[in-house]
Amino acid sequence: MANVTGLHHVAFAHDAAGDTHQRLAELLGIHVIHVEEGEGFVERMTPVGRCHIQTLEATGPGVIKRFVDRRGPGLHHVALEVDDIQDFLESLRREGVQLLDEKPRPGGMGTEIAFIHPSVFGGLLVELVQQIPPRDGEKHP
Amino acid sequence: MANVTGLHHVAFAHDAAGDTHQRLAELLGIHVIHVEEGEGFVERMTPVGRCHIQTLEATGPGVIKRFVDRRGPGLHHVALEVDDIQDFLESLRREGVQLLDEKPRPGGMGTEIAFIHPSVFGGLLVELVQQIPPRDGEKHP
Repeated sequence: MANVTGLHHVAFAHDAAGDTHQRLAELLGIHVIHVEEGEGFVERMTPVGRCHIQTLEATGPGVIKRFVDRRGPGLHHVALEVDDIQDFLESLRREGVQLLDEKPRPGGMGTEIAFIHPSVFGGLLVELVQQIPPRDGEKHP
Repeated sequence: MANVTGLHHVAFAHDAAGDTHQRLAELLGIHVIHVEEGEGFVERMTPVGRCHIQTLEATGPGVIKRFVDRRGPGLHHVALEVDDIQDFLESLRREGVQLLDEKPRPGGMGTEIAFIHPSVFGGLLVELVQQIPPRDGEKHP
Protein backbone atom coordinates (compact mmCIF):
# COMPACT_ATOMS: atom_id res chain seq x y z
CA MET A 1 0.00 0.00 0.00
CA ALA A 2 1.32 3.41 -1.00
CA ASN A 3 1.68 6.16 1.62
CA VAL A 4 1.45 9.91 1.99
CA THR A 5 4.97 10.95 3.02
CA GLY A 6 4.74 14.73 3.30
CA LEU A 7 3.25 18.02 2.25
CA HIS A 8 4.84 18.98 -1.06
CA HIS A 9 3.30 22.40 -1.62
CA VAL A 10 0.36 24.66 -1.06
CA ALA A 11 -0.74 26.64 -4.11
CA PHE A 12 -1.98 30.23 -4.25
CA ALA A 13 -3.63 31.52 -7.45
CA HIS A 14 -3.52 35.16 -8.58
CA ASP A 15 -3.71 37.29 -11.69
CA ALA A 16 -1.02 39.28 -13.53
CA ALA A 17 -1.29 42.11 -10.98
CA GLY A 18 -0.21 39.77 -8.18
CA ASP A 19 3.28 40.02 -6.69
CA THR A 20 2.87 37.58 -3.81
CA HIS A 21 6.16 35.79 -4.57
CA GLN A 22 8.04 39.12 -4.53
CA ARG A 23 6.45 40.18 -1.24
CA LEU A 24 7.28 36.80 0.34
CA ALA A 25 10.91 37.33 -0.65
CA GLU A 26 11.14 40.96 0.48
CA LEU A 27 9.33 40.59 3.79
CA LEU A 28 9.86 36.97 4.84
CA GLY A 29 13.20 36.19 3.16
CA ILE A 30 11.87 33.16 1.23
CA HIS A 31 12.71 33.12 -2.46
CA VAL A 32 11.50 31.55 -5.71
CA ILE A 33 13.86 28.81 -6.93
CA HIS A 34 11.91 27.51 -9.90
CA VAL A 35 9.62 28.98 -12.56
CA GLU A 36 7.68 26.91 -15.08
CA GLU A 37 4.89 27.51 -17.59
CA GLY A 38 1.65 25.54 -17.59
CA GLU A 39 -1.50 25.83 -19.70
CA GLY A 40 -2.64 29.38 -19.08
CA PHE A 41 -0.47 29.96 -16.03
CA VAL A 42 3.07 30.43 -14.76
CA GLU A 43 4.00 28.57 -11.57
CA ARG A 44 6.69 29.75 -9.19
CA MET A 45 8.02 27.56 -6.38
CA THR A 46 9.27 29.09 -3.13
CA PRO A 47 10.77 26.55 -0.73
CA VAL A 48 9.79 26.77 2.95
CA GLY A 49 11.62 24.14 4.97
CA ARG A 50 10.91 20.85 3.18
CA CYS A 51 7.70 22.18 1.57
CA HIS A 52 6.97 24.89 -0.96
CA ILE A 53 4.58 27.74 -1.52
CA GLN A 54 3.55 27.55 -5.16
CA THR A 55 2.22 30.76 -6.68
CA LEU A 56 0.13 30.32 -9.82
CA GLU A 57 -0.18 33.37 -12.04
CA ALA A 58 -3.06 33.25 -14.53
CA THR A 59 -1.61 34.25 -17.91
CA GLY A 60 -4.38 33.02 -20.23
CA PRO A 61 -7.61 31.01 -20.35
CA GLY A 62 -7.65 27.93 -18.14
CA VAL A 63 -8.40 26.61 -14.64
CA ILE A 64 -6.33 29.24 -12.81
CA LYS A 65 -7.92 32.18 -14.62
CA ARG A 66 -11.40 30.72 -14.00
CA PHE A 67 -10.62 30.34 -10.28
CA VAL A 68 -9.28 33.90 -9.93
CA ASP A 69 -12.11 35.42 -12.01
CA ARG A 70 -14.68 33.65 -9.82
CA ARG A 71 -13.30 34.32 -6.35
CA GLY A 72 -10.28 36.57 -6.56
CA PRO A 73 -6.74 35.64 -5.55
CA GLY A 74 -6.77 32.76 -3.09
CA LEU A 75 -5.36 29.45 -1.95
CA HIS A 76 -6.12 26.90 -4.65
CA HIS A 77 -4.97 23.42 -3.60
CA VAL A 78 -2.70 21.40 -1.35
CA ALA A 79 -0.26 18.86 -2.79
CA LEU A 80 0.68 15.76 -0.81
CA GLU A 81 3.77 13.76 -1.58
CA VAL A 82 3.26 10.00 -2.01
CA ASP A 83 5.78 7.23 -2.43
CA ASP A 84 3.92 5.45 -5.27
CA ILE A 85 1.38 7.55 -7.15
CA GLN A 86 0.36 4.76 -9.55
CA ASP A 87 -0.45 2.42 -6.67
CA PHE A 88 -2.19 5.20 -4.74
CA LEU A 89 -4.46 6.07 -7.68
CA GLU A 90 -5.35 2.40 -8.17
CA SER A 91 -6.39 2.06 -4.52
CA LEU A 92 -8.52 5.20 -4.76
CA ARG A 93 -10.15 3.98 -7.96
CA ARG A 94 -10.99 0.67 -6.28
CA GLU A 95 -12.71 2.66 -3.51
CA GLY A 96 -14.79 4.48 -6.14
CA VAL A 97 -13.11 7.84 -5.45
CA GLN A 98 -13.72 10.50 -8.13
CA LEU A 99 -10.41 11.49 -9.71
CA LEU A 100 -9.68 14.47 -11.96
CA ASP A 101 -6.69 12.57 -13.38
CA GLU A 102 -7.16 8.84 -13.93
CA LYS A 103 -3.44 8.44 -14.57
CA PRO A 104 -0.40 10.33 -13.31
CA ARG A 105 0.75 13.14 -15.61
CA PRO A 106 3.91 15.26 -15.65
CA GLY A 107 3.94 18.09 -13.08
CA GLY A 108 6.47 20.83 -12.35
CA MET A 109 10.09 20.10 -11.38
CA GLY A 110 10.05 16.63 -12.95
CA THR A 111 7.27 15.26 -10.73
CA GLU A 112 4.28 13.07 -11.57
CA ILE A 113 0.96 14.39 -10.35
CA ALA A 114 -2.77 13.64 -10.19
CA PHE A 115 -5.67 15.63 -8.78
CA ILE A 116 -8.57 14.21 -6.76
CA HIS A 117 -12.02 15.76 -7.26
CA PRO A 118 -12.60 18.40 -4.54
CA SER A 119 -16.02 16.93 -3.65
CA VAL A 120 -14.18 13.90 -2.19
CA PHE A 121 -12.71 16.03 0.61
CA GLY A 122 -15.64 18.39 1.15
CA GLY A 123 -14.31 21.11 -1.13
CA LEU A 124 -10.57 20.67 -0.53
CA LEU A 125 -8.68 20.19 -3.81
CA VAL A 126 -5.91 17.65 -3.20
CA GLU A 127 -3.06 16.92 -5.61
CA LEU A 128 -0.90 13.84 -5.23
CA VAL A 129 2.76 14.30 -6.18
CA GLN A 130 5.56 11.82 -6.64
CA GLN A 131 9.13 12.95 -7.04
CA ILE A 132 10.59 11.06 -9.94
CA PRO A 133 14.34 10.41 -9.84
CA PRO A 134 16.11 11.56 -13.02
CA ARG A 135 16.43 8.80 -15.59
CA ASP A 136 19.86 7.44 -16.54
CA GLY A 137 21.84 9.87 -18.62
CA GLU A 138 19.51 12.80 -17.88
CA LYS A 139 20.73 15.75 -15.91
CA HIS A 140 18.46 18.04 -14.00
CA PRO A 141 19.60 21.65 -13.68
CA MET B 1 17.25 38.69 12.28
CA ALA B 2 14.55 36.06 12.74
CA ASN B 3 13.94 33.45 10.03
CA VAL B 4 11.17 31.40 8.48
CA THR B 5 12.16 27.81 9.23
CA GLY B 6 9.31 25.78 7.73
CA LEU B 7 5.69 25.40 6.77
CA HIS B 8 3.76 24.64 9.96
CA HIS B 9 0.28 24.08 8.54
CA VAL B 10 -2.21 24.92 5.85
CA ALA B 11 -5.73 25.58 7.08
CA PHE B 12 -9.02 24.57 5.45
CA ALA B 13 -12.28 26.10 6.71
CA HIS B 14 -15.64 24.31 6.57
CA ASP B 15 -19.02 24.21 8.28
CA ALA B 16 -20.57 21.58 10.56
CA ALA B 17 -21.51 19.41 7.54
CA GLY B 18 -17.85 19.04 6.61
CA ASP B 19 -16.01 15.76 7.22
CA THR B 20 -12.73 16.58 5.45
CA HIS B 21 -10.61 15.28 8.33
CA GLN B 22 -12.48 11.95 8.31
CA ARG B 23 -12.10 11.57 4.54
CA LEU B 24 -8.36 12.36 4.74
CA ALA B 25 -8.04 9.57 7.31
CA GLU B 26 -10.16 7.00 5.43
CA LEU B 27 -8.74 7.60 1.95
CA LEU B 28 -5.22 8.91 2.50
CA GLY B 29 -4.32 7.29 5.84
CA ILE B 30 -3.49 10.59 7.58
CA HIS B 31 -5.12 11.09 10.96
CA VAL B 32 -6.07 13.89 13.37
CA ILE B 33 -3.77 13.96 16.42
CA HIS B 34 -5.03 17.10 18.13
CA VAL B 35 -8.39 18.85 18.57
CA GLU B 36 -8.80 22.26 20.16
CA GLU B 37 -11.57 24.84 20.48
CA GLY B 38 -11.19 28.44 19.35
CA GLU B 39 -13.64 31.35 19.27
CA GLY B 40 -16.45 30.06 17.10
CA PHE B 41 -14.53 27.12 15.66
CA VAL B 42 -12.97 23.75 16.39
CA GLU B 43 -9.53 23.12 14.93
CA ARG B 44 -8.22 19.66 14.10
CA MET B 45 -4.58 19.01 13.27
CA THR B 46 -3.59 16.21 10.88
CA PRO B 47 0.19 15.74 10.55
CA VAL B 48 1.61 15.25 7.05
CA GLY B 49 5.36 14.71 7.21
CA ARG B 50 6.70 17.64 9.24
CA CYS B 51 3.68 19.85 8.43
CA HIS B 52 -0.01 19.66 9.22
CA ILE B 53 -3.34 20.08 7.52
CA GLN B 54 -5.49 22.10 9.92
CA THR B 55 -9.24 21.77 9.44
CA LEU B 56 -11.29 24.59 10.96
CA GLU B 57 -14.94 23.79 11.63
CA ALA B 58 -17.19 26.83 12.10
CA THR B 59 -19.24 26.17 15.25
CA GLY B 60 -20.49 29.70 15.98
CA PRO B 61 -20.13 33.36 14.98
CA GLY B 62 -16.60 34.44 14.11
CA VAL B 63 -14.00 34.70 11.37
CA ILE B 64 -14.32 31.09 10.22
CA LYS B 65 -18.12 31.20 9.90
CA ARG B 66 -17.89 34.50 8.01
CA PHE B 67 -15.33 33.01 5.61
CA VAL B 68 -17.43 29.88 4.96
CA ASP B 69 -20.70 31.83 4.65
CA ARG B 70 -19.08 34.12 2.09
CA ARG B 71 -17.27 31.66 -0.14
CA GLY B 72 -18.06 28.11 0.96
CA PRO B 73 -15.55 25.61 2.32
CA GLY B 74 -12.04 26.49 1.23
CA LEU B 75 -8.39 26.91 2.08
CA HIS B 76 -8.12 29.74 4.58
CA HIS B 77 -4.47 30.50 5.41
CA VAL B 78 -0.92 29.20 5.45
CA ALA B 79 1.13 29.16 8.66
CA LEU B 80 4.89 29.58 8.52
CA GLU B 81 7.13 28.55 11.39
CA VAL B 82 9.61 31.18 12.58
CA ASP B 83 12.42 30.91 15.11
CA ASP B 84 11.64 34.19 16.91
CA ILE B 85 8.12 35.53 16.41
CA GLN B 86 8.65 38.62 18.61
CA ASP B 87 11.69 39.68 16.62
CA PHE B 88 9.95 38.90 13.33
CA LEU B 89 6.92 41.05 14.19
CA GLU B 90 9.17 43.93 15.22
CA SER B 91 11.02 43.83 11.88
CA LEU B 92 7.72 43.77 9.98
CA ARG B 93 6.38 46.68 12.02
CA ARG B 94 9.53 48.67 11.25
CA GLU B 95 8.86 48.04 7.54
CA GLY B 96 5.34 49.41 7.96
CA VAL B 97 3.70 46.04 7.30
CA GLN B 98 0.02 45.84 8.26
CA LEU B 99 -0.44 43.21 10.98
CA LEU B 100 -3.67 41.65 12.25
CA ASP B 101 -1.90 40.85 15.53
CA GLU B 102 0.51 43.47 16.85
CA LYS B 103 1.80 41.01 19.45
CA PRO B 104 2.08 37.22 19.49
CA ARG B 105 -0.91 35.47 21.05
CA PRO B 106 -1.45 31.85 22.13
CA GLY B 107 -2.26 29.46 19.26
CA GLY B 108 -3.09 25.75 19.19
CA MET B 109 -0.73 23.09 20.58
CA GLY B 110 1.09 25.55 22.84
CA THR B 111 2.34 27.78 20.02
CA GLU B 112 2.54 31.56 19.78
CA ILE B 113 0.99 33.02 16.64
CA ALA B 114 0.34 36.26 14.77
CA PHE B 115 -1.46 36.96 11.50
CA ILE B 116 -0.31 39.38 8.80
CA HIS B 117 -2.99 41.32 6.89
CA PRO B 118 -3.79 39.46 3.62
CA SER B 119 -3.39 42.66 1.56
CA VAL B 120 0.36 42.51 2.29
CA PHE B 121 0.72 39.33 0.22
CA GLY B 122 -1.83 40.10 -2.50
CA GLY B 123 -4.67 38.22 -0.80
CA LEU B 124 -2.69 35.41 0.85
CA LEU B 125 -3.41 35.23 4.59
CA VAL B 126 -0.15 34.32 6.35
CA GLU B 127 0.15 33.26 9.99
CA LEU B 128 3.49 33.21 11.77
CA VAL B 129 3.92 30.42 14.32
CA GLN B 130 6.56 29.77 16.92
CA GLN B 131 6.74 26.50 18.78
CA ILE B 132 7.16 27.30 22.45
CA PRO B 133 9.00 24.73 24.56
CA PRO B 134 6.97 23.61 27.58
CA ARG B 135 7.71 25.67 30.68
CA ASP B 136 9.45 24.07 33.66
CA GLY B 137 7.14 21.78 35.54
CA GLU B 138 4.52 21.65 32.79
CA LYS B 139 3.84 18.46 30.93
CA HIS B 140 2.36 18.33 27.47
CA PRO B 141 0.28 15.25 26.68
